[in-house]
Amino acid sequence: MKKQKISDAVIHRLPRYYRYLDDLYNKGVVRISSSSLGDKMDITASQIRQDLSCFGEFGQQGYGYNVAELRAEIGHILGIDNGHRLIIIGVGHLGHALLQNFDFEKVGFQVDSAFDVSPALVDTQIRGVTIRPMDQLAEYVARYQPNVAVLTVPQNVAQPLADQLIDLGIRGFWNFTNVELSTEVPGVFFEDVHFVDTLLTLSYRISRG
Amino acid sequence: MKKQKISDAVIHRLPRYYRYLDDLYNKGVVRISSSSLGDKMDITASQIRQDLSCFGEFGQQGYGYNVAELRAEIGHILGIDNGHRLIIIGVGHLGHALLQNFDFEKVGFQVDSAFDVSPALVDTQIRGVTIRPMDQLAEYVARYQPNVAVLTVPQNVAQPLADQLIDLGIRGFWNFTNVELSTEVPGVFFEDVHFVDTLLTLSYRISRG
Repeated sequence: MKKQKISDAVIHRLPRYYRYLDDLYNKGVVRISSSSLGDKMDITASQIRQDLSCFGEFGQQGYGYNVAELRAEIGHILGIDNGHRLIIIGVGHLGHALLQNFDFEKVGFQVDSAFDVSPALVDTQIRGVTIRPMDQLAEYVARYQPNVAVLTVPQNVAQPLADQLIDLGIRGFWNFTNVELSTEVPGVFFEDVHFVDTLLTLSYRISRG
Repeated sequence: MKKQKISDAVIHRLPRYYRYLDDLYNKGVVRISSSSLGDKMDITASQIRQDLSCFGEFGQQGYGYNVAELRAEIGHILGIDNGHRLIIIGVGHLGHALLQNFDFEKVGFQVDSAFDVSPALVDTQIRGVTIRPMDQLAEYVARYQPNVAVLTVPQNVAQPLADQLIDLGIRGFWNFTNVELSTEVPGVFFEDVHFVDTLLTLSYRISRG
């Protein structure tokens, strides 16, 4: 596989490729042409070929792509076989929804533990994950070294909490707080989930449509 | 304002512009140059100028953008002043989190009502919104004609429910079900929220970083 600098635009399309290929794979589809995949995903076949060419040579003229192989390869590029271990901080309704319904394992993330300030939640379990008190967080992270934290905490604690976790070795943040987090520490990544963006896109489309 | 066909890439960047400008506006910032805005958003100044040029002429050489004006204009382009009225279907943990924490009003959406199958939830209120039983949904939509539905329901009911709501006049779906919804009816829009995409992007970055 070639290694080169990949543009953000391509990186942001990779998860979508993975989702579609995973869906095809689960439906038992063996191969697909770039034009059929493009029709499904509402992008052009040439865009697909160009995106995938960043990572090597996939597919064959007249045959198309082998679904299982391409799914595995894109999964590998996305790092889902890297054994990420995460903790969830904040088990309000959103944290609870993620613990209960989100399939972390399917994309290569093991949920090690969850933390919350509420005494009523501490020591309860959601899908086998024990919720611990916040005052055990630092010790837990120092000891077990998970590499990713999911933040579903109030806005005012988001940045100080992130700073503390970075000091303790957390390298990735899945950030639901709507606060733009930052750090001077190299090799730390934030992915912010902004629900509002898709709602605003919907507003645009129905207003113009 | 010029009207022209706007690319999906630009449309998807608009909510992000709005978020940043709204943040600057709330902090009392009066004006900003395209290069400062670009630094904040991690895109180039020329990309910003090019994107905004799709919608007319903004900013002034040597002055930059007036934050309040540009925020208002992009909000208008996004249709946040169009009086959208929505209903939330499914008040599990995620629906509850949205009702409790998401600021719909701020982006121009009024929450009219919420619906759930659970008798324990029916007739309770969350932030002033009454939860109604699912068997009142059809009559409610026919009578009050909201234009947007938020779907936080189980996957197996998502498409039949969407079909029913489209027949009743719903035109926009904010879809949290992870099912790719479709319709033959023109003028209906789906915006899917795929949590997994940002988590996979994070996986990519920490695996490569």
